[in-house]
Amino acid sequence: MSLELIPIILGVIGLVIAVLIFAMLSKMPSGSGKVKEIADDIHNGAMVFMKREYTILVGFVVILFIALYAGFGTWQTPFSFLLGAVCSGIAGYFGMFSATKANVRTTVAANEKGAAAALSVAFYGGSIMGLTVAAMGLVGLGTLYYMFGSDPAHVHAIHGFGMGASSVALFSRVGGGIFTKSADVGADLVGKIEAGIPEDDPRNPGVIADNVGDNVGDVAGMGSDIFESYCGAMIACIAIAEAMTAETITTLGGSQSNLMFLPLGLASVGLICSILGIFIVKMFSNKPADVALRAGTIGAAILFILAAYVVMHKLGINANVWWSVVAGAVGGIIIGLVTEYYTGGKPVRTLAKSGETGPATVMISGLAIGMESVVIPVITLASIILITSLLLPEGAGIYGVGIAAVGMLATVGITMAIDAYGPVADNAGGIAEMAGLGAETRAITDGLDEVGNTTAAIGKGFAIGAAGLAALAIIAAFIETISASNPGFSLDIGNPKVLMGMFLGGIFPFLVSAMTMRAVGDAAFDLIKEIRRQFKEIPGLMEGTAKPDSNKCVDIATTAALKRMIAPGLLAIVSPVVIGFVLGAAALGGMLGGALITCVLMALMMANAGGAWDNAKKYVEKGNFGGKGTDTHAAVVVGDTVGDPFKDTSGPAMNILINVMAIVSLVIAPLLAANPNGIFG
Amino acid sequence: MSLELIPIILGVIGLVIAVLIFAMLSKMPSGSGKVKEIADDIHNGAMVFMKREYTILVGFVVILFIALYAGFGTWQTPFSFLLGAVCSGIAGYFGMFSATKANVRTTVAANEKGAAAALSVAFYGGSIMGLTVAAMGLVGLGTLYYMFGSDPAHVHAIHGFGMGASSVALFSRVGGGIFTKSADVGADLVGKIEAGIPEDDPRNPGVIADNVGDNVGDVAGMGSDIFESYCGAMIACIAIAEAMTAETITTLGGSQSNLMFLPLGLASVGLICSILGIFIVKMFSNKPADVALRAGTIGAAILFILAAYVVMHKLGINANVWWSVVAGAVGGIIIGLVTEYYTGGKPVRTLAKSGETGPATVMISGLAIGMESVVIPVITLASIILITSLLLPEGAGIYGVGIAAVGMLATVGITMAIDAYGPVADNAGGIAEMAGLGAETRAITDGLDEVGNTTAAIGKGFAIGAAGLAALAIIAAFIETISASNPGFSLDIGNPKVLMGMFLGGIFPFLVSAMTMRAVGDAAFDLIKEIRRQFKEIPGLMEGTAKPDSNKCVDIATTAALKRMIAPGLLAIVSPVVIGFVLGAAALGGMLGGALITCVLMALMMANAGGAWDNAKKYVEKGNFGGKGTDTHAAVVVGDTVGDPFKDTSGPAMNILINVMAIVSLVIAPLLAANPNGIFG
Repeated sequence: MSLELIPIILGVIGLVIAVLIFAMLSKMPSGSGKVKEIADDIHNGAMVFMKREYTILVGFVVILFIALYAGFGTWQTPFSFLLGAVCSGIAGYFGMFSATKANVRTTVAANEKGAAAALSVAFYGGSIMGLTVAAMGLVGLGTLYYMFGSDPAHVHAIHGFGMGASSVALFSRVGGGIFTKSADVGADLVGKIEAGIPEDDPRNPGVIADNVGDNVGDVAGMGSDIFESYCGAMIACIAIAEAMTAETITTLGGSQSNLMFLPLGLASVGLICSILGIFIVKMFSNKPADVALRAGTIGAAILFILAAYVVMHKLGINANVWWSVVAGAVGGIIIGLVTEYYTGGKPVRTLAKSGETGPATVMISGLAIGMESVVIPVITLASIILITSLLLPEGAGIYGVGIAAVGMLATVGITMAIDAYGPVADNAGGIAEMAGLGAETRAITDGLDEVGNTTAAIGKGFAIGAAGLAALAIIAAFIETISASNPGFSLDIGNPKVLMGMFLGGIFPFLVSAMTMRAVGDAAFDLIKEIRRQFKEIPGLMEGTAKPDSNKCVDIATTAALKRMIAPGLLAIVSPVVIGFVLGAAALGGMLGGALITCVLMALMMANAGGAWDNAKKYVEKGNFGGKGTDTHAAVVVGDTVGDPFKDTSGPAMNILINVMAIVSLVIAPLLAANPNGIFG
Repeated sequence: MSLELIPIILGVIGLVIAVLIFAMLSKMPSGSGKVKEIADDIHNGAMVFMKREYTILVGFVVILFIALYAGFGTWQTPFSFLLGAVCSGIAGYFGMFSATKANVRTTVAANEKGAAAALSVAFYGGSIMGLTVAAMGLVGLGTLYYMFGSDPAHVHAIHGFGMGASSVALFSRVGGGIFTKSADVGADLVGKIEAGIPEDDPRNPGVIADNVGDNVGDVAGMGSDIFESYCGAMIACIAIAEAMTAETITTLGGSQSNLMFLPLGLASVGLICSILGIFIVKMFSNKPADVALRAGTIGAAILFILAAYVVMHKLGINANVWWSVVAGAVGGIIIGLVTEYYTGGKPVRTLAKSGETGPATVMISGLAIGMESVVIPVITLASIILITSLLLPEGAGIYGVGIAAVGMLATVGITMAIDAYGPVADNAGGIAEMAGLGAETRAITDGLDEVGNTTAAIGKGFAIGAAGLAALAIIAAFIETISASNPGFSLDIGNPKVLMGMFLGGIFPFLVSAMTMRAVGDAAFDLIKEIRRQFKEIPGLMEGTAKPDSNKCVDIATTAALKRMIAPGLLAIVSPVVIGFVLGAAALGGMLGGALITCVLMALMMANAGGAWDNAKKYVEKGNFGGKGTDTHAAVVVGDTVGDPFKDTSGPAMNILINVMAIVSLVIAPLLAANPNGIFG
């Protein structure tokens, strides 16, 4: 059997398993009465959002498809782009569809069978997302590799897949991120503060939107985010291997085609390891949730590292490339542990204490925590770059960086499963609360949710690290594509154009952060007006005798979010094209460099500051420093409210921003290579 | 007369004028009784801080002097370093000494003679700082140029002057910044919030420290900051011209020595124009303060641009180099106007309005304003790079960037005067308030203060822009120094070492921001404890029958600030050395590139967010959105408290951080050039 067919076959197997899990999940009891009603509202709300989001995306994809066809004059790149967008869309849709089925089944399991059963159900819900992301990536990219991998004239078209995936991710992540946080802020502000009713109270018209937000933001948005890093890392390795000199290939061992195939091979065994990891979690499901989830993640990672060695050996590739995988895995764990420390360790307690002197000190401390938290992760990324450049022959170091990113993401099936498990458990708790199922059920779902937050820290570390390395590898591939037909092309910082580009690149993360943070505020404001209106105009709502118009709130949050995702999305996609063709390839390369550094720093800062604020609030709410109702609590709530858009909207947008800009640059690289100097010559 | 003597002679003339203004100022009435007592306390407190700060600095300078002597084995570089540190120290000391004499004389003038007289006095106070900065730079650097300028073996030693100036600036700015903000926060928190007494109430033990802070932070700190950019820009131009190829020199016109002399020549005529500008302000002093100050600044700038053309013509240098000066001046004005807009225009009113929904929205809006505010300034810097690279022949573009920075800073005599005038007016108001001189006097000083804030925006724009361009030019000089003995050396982003360096470089601005923000909080806490103790333990303090122990507060704030300036200061100075010798020159170059982008972005973001928060608070306090005492006011006060360390401690530290790292790199460049690969080969 041809080697190239393996990723496709394994991808299909992964999809089949995902569908089987879904079928099993569907048969589980989904509650009745109030539970079912609420769950249906959430599910339908999420589907309304997805439908409207995808409608915009389709229009957008069609326009880009035409633009690519106009630019290239051939069908291959536009086709790959379309396939990437479709694969990402399917993964996001199916994963979120399943998550909104799993949430209520988790509630029912927690209510009827206890913690172990609830863990299984919630984790199955997450697993469908995890497996679908991995499988769609392998099927889609595997198919393109099979079609174009050995065809030098069209191998470049594969990059289009990454552009499709990144474009969908950008809009999903930004749109979903704005939706989820505006619904969260809006529902809380009017419900908890103005109306004085608890969180997740069914009388609050915004509470369904809040639960919908967990799905569209944290499940679908996150899934498309990981999907684009996963595919981007593989595409970068293929591109770098394709541009390698014969000499470098010889020192790396193997053949050029084997080096190009390696990322797909690693991802294929990674999928097998993820499936095994899912079984491990299932096996451990009667243990505490954190033990089970950790056993699955770590088990899969260890199996993968061993399997990766075998893959390299079979492909005849130098063992030093395998060490890149190890460096990536160790680096990912280090970044994850740092994330865990800053968002759960001593800094959180210090931050909570700073609430005693008011919201200003909470802000200053939280920002300082976020800023400080970049140090070790960035040193880790720099070390991975250093190690791969020392391990591998000159010119091949960057291939090692790409392989390290692939290594971090190869077990995405299980890490993404755990990421998606969190919002499923969170939603299950919301449903239990709204349906009034009692404290015991709520305690189980709260426990699952809390564990999800902790285990997800490692996953987030991998995601941020891998996104940075993937972008880096894509940028390297961009440089090589331009150099191939422009000998002597380099991104020398001493070149004024490169320097100018670096400055311009630094702007985007700041501007997109500003836009998305403002968007959350504005969208929340739209929703607040509607919730206030309903409380005022619907008679009997506060007394519980009338139902709120939840659909209207979902609709308003959807409109608000989708309207505001367009500008940052277009900015990311259009700016590399404009800078590349106007200021030239050197300026574009510099821009990518400047944006990469700034995006990684801002992503880490915002994610960790946001996480620390969130958990400082939870820490106070557990009764520390006076607990709820005190001035200290009010102060840390301010931190949490600022942290929400930091960690769930603007921060995550950074990862995608740099990957979108990098992959768009790589796609247009062949066109730029023909005229690399821009209009100023 | 030899051309090289002109800067020295003009510098001496500038110093003489500064001393004459000081003599005139000294003779003005300095009040009596309570006014005099308070003024003496402030003056003595500032001197205590300076004395202790300089004691630490002396120790530090001696160590670096020895280290440089050990590294180079010759006296020239250590001597230049020492001279730079001494010149900066003298400028800071004399300027601040004068400011603490001018403040009380402004109060008295406002009380006895009215607004026009008060404006003159306050502006004279600022002018002494402005002239001293410009004059010390010309005398110091002019002397070194006279000694080493035409000696290829030792011309490199001139860079040591920049390192001396930058080292002093770093500690002054960071130490002064921590002092001023911790005193401000500490005095306000206990006084206004806990004890319920007004700002600047003489019963508050921390209020003298607060007024001392304005002098040590905003006068001495700011002065040393501008001094190092001013000298750094000139040094970079000298270094770039010195490394120029004969071919480039021919296309630029003039001789190599004329191109090396040009920055000193421009600064010399800039000083003359500044002196004329000071006369213009004096002439207009019976007009409204803003008209007078603006007439002086703009008048000096226009005169300078014209004079610069004459200088180029006399030196036989291509007119395109003159256009770089114009580009720098126009760029500085654009950045200044953007600063003015974001810290005074519509964004401030929107920000104030966001206070209606609480402190969280104030934080989000303020951060978004800060992030958005980087866009146009950074595009402006990028445009200056583009324009100079288009105007000038290949390889000379960066010389144009350096000249643009010199152009921005050449009229530092007047722009710095206006910067220093602000805190003098602010202090004058504080003295009037504490001495109970009545509303009329206070209205005059408040008016002067407010005008100072607005006119200073343009100055701040020039300062940030020029610091960025100066650092850039120094980095270019570093690259050229390494390349000179290592042909083929370049900072290609595709080189893993450069890339690794860029990532590492991005860490420093975040880490130093975190350290300095925390330092303010910690130092404020030390002071708060002392103020609380005094209120509790000194009988009759609240009743006004006993005097607070203000000296003790100054002492505590001094200790706290000086202790906490060491770590960030050392980090900035030591890290380039470590990275350069361990990871190599390419990694160091990459580090400078990464740090440059990030520092510029963070400096702009923090300065503008902080300014916007400050003015949003003032806007509410004028009675908008309910005015003082409302929840909206409480919310914008939170913004202002967070903004204080942003705009006066961490933000300004960014400019110096990148300049220190760049100049240290340039100083060690000849040593690195001999072994550019670091320990990993």
